[in-house]
Amino acid sequence: MEANKIVLIGAGNVATHLGVALVRKGYSVLQVYSRTEEAAKALAIRLQTGFTTCLDDVTDEADLYIVSIKDSALDEVLPRLTCRNPRAMYVHTAGSISIDVWKGLAVRYGVLYPLQTFSKECEVDFSAVPCFVEANTEEDTALLQRLASELSRNVYRASSEQRRYLHIAAVFACNFSNHLYAVCDHLLSSHGLPFEVMLPLIDETARKVHQLRPVEAQTGPARRYDENVIGRHMEMLQDEPELAQLYALISRNIHTYQTNND
Amino acid sequence: MEANKIVLIGAGNVATHLGVALVRKGYSVLQVYSRTEEAAKALAIRLQTGFTTCLDDVTDEADLYIVSIKDSALDEVLPRLTCRNPRAMYVHTAGSISIDVWKGLAVRYGVLYPLQTFSKECEVDFSAVPCFVEANTEEDTALLQRLASELSRNVYRASSEQRRYLHIAAVFACNFSNHLYAVCDHLLSSHGLPFEVMLPLIDETARKVHQLRPVEAQTGPARRYDENVIGRHMEMLQDEPELAQLYALISRNIHTYQTNND
Repeated sequence: MEANKIVLIGAGNVATHLGVALVRKGYSVLQVYSRTEEAAKALAIRLQTGFTTCLDDVTDEADLYIVSIKDSALDEVLPRLTCRNPRAMYVHTAGSISIDVWKGLAVRYGVLYPLQTFSKECEVDFSAVPCFVEANTEEDTALLQRLASELSRNVYRASSEQRRYLHIAAVFACNFSNHLYAVCDHLLSSHGLPFEVMLPLIDETARKVHQLRPVEAQTGPARRYDENVIGRHMEMLQDEPELAQLYALISRNIHTYQTNND
Repeated sequence: MEANKIVLIGAGNVATHLGVALVRKGYSVLQVYSRTEEAAKALAIRLQTGFTTCLDDVTDEADLYIVSIKDSALDEVLPRLTCRNPRAMYVHTAGSISIDVWKGLAVRYGVLYPLQTFSKECEVDFSAVPCFVEANTEEDTALLQRLASELSRNVYRASSEQRRYLHIAAVFACNFSNHLYAVCDHLLSSHGLPFEVMLPLIDETARKVHQLRPVEAQTGPARRYDENVIGRHMEMLQDEPELAQLYALISRNIHTYQTNND
């Protein structure tokens, strides 16, 4: 049993990049559903397919429904979706949602979690995106693994428990790092300096952990807990208490990690 | 007046990478000084030159002394250094130290600040490292600019005030991001997952800000302030209060930045 006819439920960043990758590999995306007409239409045009903003109009002719919607909408959407086509397979793409969310709603179900930061404006080389799959039967786990392997060369099986930790780890490494870039941008631009000067450093920081463990790659005043520098930096941040708090907390934590590592 | 004969005061990460880049470009490094014999010797061997661990034995035959030592050691080292060769030029390499640290100690002085994360174990392409120069005369600023331009294609003039902000911005974007990679590594390895799976995501997060401003590139639960996900993540961190505190603080700050940006 294969999954060649696909419906995308959701038209956000993940659905967009997954949809583009699927169509490129020759999969047939029958339809896009999104609550928001603008998003549904934009993705449908990109994939040259139809769209709907009404769950009751989702076609029942697909083999596989891929659900990429806000976690908080799952409870409402899933039962209304699965009841229309009980023989199909259903997967969601959320890192922190258990496979059990499907229990009692579908017979064949699973998860296809692409571990990447997707923005609609940025092209992504999907073949490099690590994908984590899980299904309720061995047969369907293998099916998802085959499907994901057509899109990406980094496909792994992961339990719901492991995926939860992948997701929170990714929040730290990616979402939170990006926020630190935003803080950097803010500090530079408010002193007449272009963010661009920081790019070689940002690149090198990411590159280094291909070679060294992060705790070994750590540099900067907090590593050696240089109180002179830390004190001067805290003074510079005194008008921005959230940044001062962040600076103090991370510096302390770096020092703890280094102490435990030495 | 050029600076062809150089002495390196310090044998840490910055001195090492700067020394290697200088020697590659044909500069003559006459000597390496470090308090620590092991470090002085290692760098001297790498640069095929002599070393000393005694400030009074630093040669007075150099045109340029480059000081890359811990900020807290400057007060003690600088006066003992400059008095031996009053006609030479002196620069330090510290982001957060003003050029005025030389005032009254030397006639020709300045700063050469390479904005990069250096670890001795990692090769760095110095030609891509942004370098910020400052000197007490226009003539010597131009001299430092020429010298730095032989090592790097990204050379800028920056005042001490701008450099302070470059440094603190770099601490956020680089040192603190690296700590978040370390947190990620810790969360993954304590759940049997290899850090390597996160590398494509770390790379993409860094790559994206070449194209989008960080605040626009922001993704993840905190961007949309998804309380379900945030709540579940806070629960997962309940045994690690420092991480829980960090998670809560950054999530709140991301939300504030997004609200101000929308």
